[in-house]
Amino acid sequence: MLNGKEAAALLRGWDNIALLCHASPDGDTLGSACALKRGLAAMGKRARILCGDPIPEKFSYLFAGSAEESFAPEHVVTVDVADLSLLGSLEKTYRDRIELAIDHHGVHRAFTENRWVEANSAATAELIYLLLVELGAPIDRKTADCVYTGLTTDTGCFRYRNVTPRTHKIAARMLELGADGGGINQRMFESKSRAQMEGEKLALQSLEFFCQGKCAMVRVPLSLYRETGAKEEDLEGVASLPRQILGVVYGFTLKEKPDGSVKVSVRANPPGDAAAFCKRFGGGGHVGAAGCTMENTTLDQAALLLRKAAEGLGL
Amino acid sequence: MLNGKEAAALLRGWDNIALLCHASPDGDTLGSACALKRGLAAMGKRARILCGDPIPEKFSYLFAGSAEESFAPEHVVTVDVADLSLLGSLEKTYRDRIELAIDHHGVHRAFTENRWVEANSAATAELIYLLLVELGAPIDRKTADCVYTGLTTDTGCFRYRNVTPRTHKIAARMLELGADGGGINQRMFESKSRAQMEGEKLALQSLEFFCQGKCAMVRVPLSLYRETGAKEEDLEGVASLPRQILGVVYGFTLKEKPDGSVKVSVRANPPGDAAAFCKRFGGGGHVGAAGCTMENTTLDQAALLLRKAAEGLGL
Repeated sequence: MLNGKEAAALLRGWDNIALLCHASPDGDTLGSACALKRGLAAMGKRARILCGDPIPEKFSYLFAGSAEESFAPEHVVTVDVADLSLLGSLEKTYRDRIELAIDHHGVHRAFTENRWVEANSAATAELIYLLLVELGAPIDRKTADCVYTGLTTDTGCFRYRNVTPRTHKIAARMLELGADGGGINQRMFESKSRAQMEGEKLALQSLEFFCQGKCAMVRVPLSLYRETGAKEEDLEGVASLPRQILGVVYGFTLKEKPDGSVKVSVRANPPGDAAAFCKRFGGGGHVGAAGCTMENTTLDQAALLLRKAAEGLGL
Repeated sequence: MLNGKEAAALLRGWDNIALLCHASPDGDTLGSACALKRGLAAMGKRARILCGDPIPEKFSYLFAGSAEESFAPEHVVTVDVADLSLLGSLEKTYRDRIELAIDHHGVHRAFTENRWVEANSAATAELIYLLLVELGAPIDRKTADCVYTGLTTDTGCFRYRNVTPRTHKIAARMLELGADGGGINQRMFESKSRAQMEGEKLALQSLEFFCQGKCAMVRVPLSLYRETGAKEEDLEGVASLPRQILGVVYGFTLKEKPDGSVKVSVRANPPGDAAAFCKRFGGGGHVGAAGCTMENTTLDQAALLLRKAAEGLGL
């Protein structure tokens, strides 16, 4: 395990660096990589960003004003990658070449000797900021945008319990350096495609309660995607809705899959235990959020099984 | 106009202080008043909080562990009150007795000589924090909860453009002092009554688009309240939904009122101008958010008029 000083010392000695993001890229892996790339470029170093999946259009601003570099990398660094498998299509080419890993996931599975992992950091972007300071790399307005993006997306806009005083202090510094916090937040949290809005609307129509309002359930049939044009990732926010209702202990979201299975997301409020609940169906997770997959079943059958299990808890 | 030092000097010389909140109290007026009351109490002073409306249950934690004081106030201070009329039922009794006003509203209408108004402060709670520091009043965990509540509620959880570096710095300090940021945010932003969820769901059903998707409209008929048990304030969040859809320039939310009028909320994304639009119907507001009331009409008639006006813009 390294600390920030040691990670900075490594980078100071390197050039022509590939920065690997995780697949299904989010604001933290991309914001962190873009901030680091910009910082390294400001120090006169070449860096390029690689990701196993296409970059979603909503993150395009992170890359604006930063030249696309193409070169054979001499050194390989992962950013916000908790496990080799999360590299997706990049895994095969780079798995044995990684010389530095920077991450904040508590479940980080060590895949390289040189790793700087701080699980109490709300975002990898916090570590990237500390790294840039350590490197003495200048942080301009666009770099500040990148760091801010990592902070805000991995904390639900500073909402979650993973936020620490340091998170807010770095956010303050990024605003001082010119980050467009309000604009970034509008883009990240207040923008939906029409298909996404229609999909959420239709999913919400299925909302039902049982166990005297202590359980709430939403169903997402395959037909919903056809009818609305929404994709599965468009409906990620739906899983958090049932639990938001006052009095609800268990919130269930059931998604029908093309392979004949049903993917179940369970969210719990105290005294509920989502992990214990999902364990009964071969799944797992955390107390507040867990999941399981029910094979060879229909939405109706899965809903009935879950409902019976919930009723058996004597809530 | 006073500064924080002068406001603190006044309070230092006083005892038996009434702190007046604005009617329809929100997290900033209540969090600010509760934080100030706790700080004054820690200095051995008596203070009580008055509000012209009942305190919503969701803010009850702000008052926990703080004795309810009953005494004839010698001094009267308003907190987060932009105008005397916003005192509601308290206005008559106290309007001529106010000796200090602490506020952050740009539209603050001066009603007392001694006022400390900082319009670039995201929340009045920021000023209250500075005041407590100036007074040397201890800030315990519960006081930190109160200040944090004001910050987070008036910024949409640090989302809006009114957030400054100072907002984040004070939030960091409040977490250091033990504020339960994650818990407060869950309570403020992730808790809906079943009636509220059902009301939003039904309102969203009416979502329609026109002007090639550049306008979106949601209608809230009076029957919706009957059918779902939702109250008008339960549907405050609905007005922000149409504008969130990508490509939408104008988002309209129409609420049928019992007096035969229709209340229209307009939200605009660039290049839209909500204020200019509403002016044509006798309303007003800001570029991004404005409103108007259309008298003696039905939802259908109002919707048609608005649609025609939007189509005339050549979006």
